[in-house]
Amino acid sequence: MSIDVSIRLGTGDAAIAAEYTRVREQLPQALRAVQVLAEQGLPHFKLPSQTGDLADIAALAGGLTDGAKDLVILGIGGSSLGAKALCQLAGWGTPAQPSLKDRPHLHFVENLDGRSLAGLLSGLDPAATKVLAVSKSGSTTETLAQLLIVAAWASARGADLARHCAVIAEPGNNALRQWAQMTGCPVMDHDPALGGRYSVLSCVGLVPSAVAGLDIRAIRHGAAQALAPLLALDEGSSWAQGAALNMAAMACGRSQSVLWAYADRLEKLTLWWRQLWGESLGKQGKGSTPINALGPVDQHSQLQLYLDGPNDKLITIITTQDGDDLAVPADAAGRIGQSLLGGRTVAEIVNAQARATAEALVRAGRTVRVIHVPRLGEQAMGALMMHFILETLVTAQLLGVDPFDQ
Amino acid sequence: MSIDVSIRLGTGDAAIAAEYTRVREQLPQALRAVQVLAEQGLPHFKLPSQTGDLADIAALAGGLTDGAKDLVILGIGGSSLGAKALCQLAGWGTPAQPSLKDRPHLHFVENLDGRSLAGLLSGLDPAATKVLAVSKSGSTTETLAQLLIVAAWASARGADLARHCAVIAEPGNNALRQWAQMTGCPVMDHDPALGGRYSVLSCVGLVPSAVAGLDIRAIRHGAAQALAPLLALDEGSSWAQGAALNMAAMACGRSQSVLWAYADRLEKLTLWWRQLWGESLGKQGKGSTPINALGPVDQHSQLQLYLDGPNDKLITIITTQDGDDLAVPADAAGRIGQSLLGGRTVAEIVNAQARATAEALVRAGRTVRVIHVPRLGEQAMGALMMHFILETLVTAQLLGVDPFDQ
Repeated sequence: MSIDVSIRLGTGDAAIAAEYTRVREQLPQALRAVQVLAEQGLPHFKLPSQTGDLADIAALAGGLTDGAKDLVILGIGGSSLGAKALCQLAGWGTPAQPSLKDRPHLHFVENLDGRSLAGLLSGLDPAATKVLAVSKSGSTTETLAQLLIVAAWASARGADLARHCAVIAEPGNNALRQWAQMTGCPVMDHDPALGGRYSVLSCVGLVPSAVAGLDIRAIRHGAAQALAPLLALDEGSSWAQGAALNMAAMACGRSQSVLWAYADRLEKLTLWWRQLWGESLGKQGKGSTPINALGPVDQHSQLQLYLDGPNDKLITIITTQDGDDLAVPADAAGRIGQSLLGGRTVAEIVNAQARATAEALVRAGRTVRVIHVPRLGEQAMGALMMHFILETLVTAQLLGVDPFDQ
Repeated sequence: MSIDVSIRLGTGDAAIAAEYTRVREQLPQALRAVQVLAEQGLPHFKLPSQTGDLADIAALAGGLTDGAKDLVILGIGGSSLGAKALCQLAGWGTPAQPSLKDRPHLHFVENLDGRSLAGLLSGLDPAATKVLAVSKSGSTTETLAQLLIVAAWASARGADLARHCAVIAEPGNNALRQWAQMTGCPVMDHDPALGGRYSVLSCVGLVPSAVAGLDIRAIRHGAAQALAPLLALDEGSSWAQGAALNMAAMACGRSQSVLWAYADRLEKLTLWWRQLWGESLGKQGKGSTPINALGPVDQHSQLQLYLDGPNDKLITIITTQDGDDLAVPADAAGRIGQSLLGGRTVAEIVNAQARATAEALVRAGRTVRVIHVPRLGEQAMGALMMHFILETLVTAQLLGVDPFDQ
């Protein structure tokens, strides 16, 4: 698995091109600063190569899978966006979801809404429902409110909370851990040094991934591959170049950064990235607004604006060849005057659209980057996530903001 | 049902306030221009009070419901975003979805992705699956490719396409109508004068809504209420003021307009609006970028950026009192040190968060508008949609762009 990156600067973007060249000169210093963070032993950099915790993660996931028709995951923002992004690789949250019948149905409640929560509970069998509550601080209002309501619902229907629930929170005397002690349910530690938006490679992202049937070791492995260039201070790495391009775009008035993925399985990745980028860089009046998009569907919703509206965006398109070889039936296509579509696979059509969109944007003078992922498996997801984490950290160095605070 | 709108200008926004006052002077002329469009008989303005087509819409929906465990809806952008927004009012696309067992499961495939489509089909029973394909032009690549694949899947498994499928397309010799003729399935007309992003109040939005069990007459009625001020050229209407505020914000460098709804049932409304706003105004280098957000969940993902990043956004928050009266159990809350949460309903907590978010944004000098919807039923959805359509059309007049072309 590799990430091929091509950075296309639209015609008329001489200003960005010049700025990009200038910023690249600052890269060695920024990379060195991130390397120092790594040397300080921050978990952000240790997690990719960590394997000692995988058995415990798999065991907790096994307990949540055993006898479960449904798994309700409570957790908001950093406690759920990464897990959703990973589970989508297994088809969760895509139209393919109805076919996922051999695993518990995952319900990421996340947003607090009484009508939704009541509706969800009315459709579940408490005897076959398990619950995972995740909050770093152990005191997140939304998650606690949801957990107390769901637990009361389950208890009233005879479920044993110790067997049906599990909790992830940092150590200490916080509300979530008190609740776990009260009910006797299993607890896993959230690393106190790991902010929610960086927690995807820890148990926060990997327990749900294991329930969804993903290879969690491969996710870590992909992340380690994307991290490797940091040790070599490689300015040519895709994420170092990406940071320089983002800096150049911001300096030239591109106030928005669009991540446009051409695969349903990457839709939640763009939402995970949206928090990572926004919360890490949006401070002291600095940063750019992260915007998620999905292709080809957003060609029919956003492309008009991106092509002909204000030229204020850096647009990153992610493509993959890894589709299904579903082909459009040639006979029927011919009979309705669509012989150009006939016999082509959906992956071919989508890739042609992604390329055409990138070309059209460049022709319109917009700044475009294309990230290509040949095969979209666990290793690629780990690599993509680490790519964006590192791109964010290097950009923070160049911007002069602290990417870890809030 | 009414929409209460309060426009809050953050401290330090003297420039926007002055510009807002200036733009309001141009409102009478802009309203008159939109009124002229209405007098020309455009379907955009006739639909709210139209009732003659409701029986046919209900009949088509009845046929798609009859014997169906699943309804696959093919259509992209304007052919699906409005329908999704309406169906979400009935719980579709929220965590409450598993409880919706007495109606066909709705699958809006929308995005073209072979892996997703293959996964979806493998989970469906062809004998109990119906299909609705929607394309104004009748020649949308994504929709045709999906339809040909789904039809081949259904036919190969013995389904009679004439009974299992239906089509919405404009009259003429287009591919979708040719396909309908070939298979003998029912067809409904897409009004040729109605662009996709304005089609929600036509059969495009209302057939899926009727399948979801919504009162389609009430949706139209709410829209008619929101439209009424146009006849009176009422500059005080919520959408006229909204257009002026958006113009003032754009003139003062607010390049982004955020629609932040505090209810799961409004999440897809924000995506529908995103197309409406972006495609109608994003041309000739003009327009602002529409950004969707959901509360309270995006407090944990986007709020940091909105509060402390660049001050380049107009933020519209939609609140509703209409939740479920699920309350947090007081006993258990007290035992984990959360007595402040105990006994409070989820709706109370969410409303307190929405108010606190608006306050915090205003204190940080950001420009905030609050739209309050007391009861979130069909009538309110119709009114909200017409509100945003009219706000877009008036803004287009003020900006000097054609809101109907692409």
